Amino acid sequence: MLDVAPTVPELPFITVEGIDGCGKTTQAALMVDALKRAGYAVLALREPGGVALSEKIRALLLDPAYTEMSDTCELLLYEAARAQLVHERIAPALAAGTVVVCDRFFDSTTCYQAFGGGLDRAVVGRANELAVGACRPRLTLVFDIDPVDAAARAASRDGSPDRMEAKGLAYQERVAAGFRALAAEEPDRVKLIDAARPVEAVFADVCTCLRGAGFALAEA
Amino acid sequence: MLDVAPTVPELPFITVEGIDGCGKTTQAALMVDALKRAGYAVLALREPGGVALSEKIRALLLDPAYTEMSDTCELLLYEAARAQLVHERIAPALAAGTVVVCDRFFDSTTCYQAFGGGLDRAVVGRANELAVGACRPRLTLVFDIDPVDAAARAASRDGSPDRMEAKGLAYQERVAAGFRALAAEEPDRVKLIDAARPVEAVFADVCTCLRGAGFALAEA
Repeated sequence: MLDVAPTVPELPFITVEGIDGCGKTTQAALMVDALKRAGYAVLALREPGGVALSEKIRALLLDPAYTEMSDTCELLLYEAARAQLVHERIAPALAAGTVVVCDRFFDSTTCYQAFGGGLDRAVVGRANELAVGACRPRLTLVFDIDPVDAAARAASRDGSPDRMEAKGLAYQERVAAGFRALAAEEPDRVKLIDAARPVEAVFADVCTCLRGAGFALAEA
Repeated sequence: MLDVAPTVPELPFITVEGIDGCGKTTQAALMVDALKRAGYAVLALREPGGVALSEKIRALLLDPAYTEMSDTCELLLYEAARAQLVHERIAPALAAGTVVVCDRFFDSTTCYQAFGGGLDRAVVGRANELAVGACRPRLTLVFDIDPVDAAARAASRDGSPDRMEAKGLAYQERVAAGFRALAAEEPDRVKLIDAARPVEAVFADVCTCLRGAGFALAEA
């Protein structure tokens, strides 16, 4: 910890994205540690969830009992959980100068519900906008990995696939392609990181992206 | 029951609306009985709820534990429950020529969240559109009553106010004014009925509205 707190970039909101098994949760934890060591106040969150009400919504979304859930209902539940997380945690933290690191945010909705699922992308975009208003990430790290490799990682982590993971490989491939498309569309905000490498090599790229976004991390 | 089924108007979707205690649930039950006696196949539903997933969402919405629920989260939860109800019950029933009578629908969201609450009406309109798509009611009956009288009815019905009812009289007044505004804006679809009269007198107006919308009810 430094004696003098580092300068906080404007709207210090970072999101990590990618398909299940891409390693984003590990990288988010390493990033939070590095930011704290550099003297930043950091709030780590995950989506869907993060606050009591959103965790309840998350439980509905992941419950295999609701196989009849319509795409639109699923979209709106994700957005409801997101709106509450923004209201209770993200917006207040950002207003206080705290760095927020969120494991998944609205880009997941764009990629899973529009690229992966059957929803129109413009519809998903309007739903995202309803949920977050002005509270948009300044930096989004996408951990890019082949869905076959990601599925192997996810399966070794926990035995039974949840409702999302049960949708199959072709779906995961469309989602992964969606994340790549977002990185191409918004290169200033969305950074694609090759996640098919050892944790340390991936994290070195993460640190480069953080420095590029104005965070004062020590050189490795 | 007639020998020959009556002609079903196109998109036979009827909603009943108004503040709590206005008598709409009683009138909806009478209407369903009358339509069935006239030979219609009728599906009676209520919002929020009506299907297993939407009932779970309804429980979240009405739980007094979530006093910190943001207006946007509340809006999106109502829309999620609605989208699922449309998907599972309303759209399939209408496609089969069944008359659908729903106790509350998207006009409640417009009146409670926009007129009553702090949300922008255009935002609520976009959220309603996301949830229902083309599945819009052809006839909406608004049971208009003074909020003071409605509160007395609601209190005599069940002791403790739920989270919505706890918001106070000024709020209910704004909601009631919203329903009147909708009736003025869309007179072909939204019919305002004076609900401060005996059940039978109110129901006579209901029947007149149904006949006006093309339903073949017997004359009283």
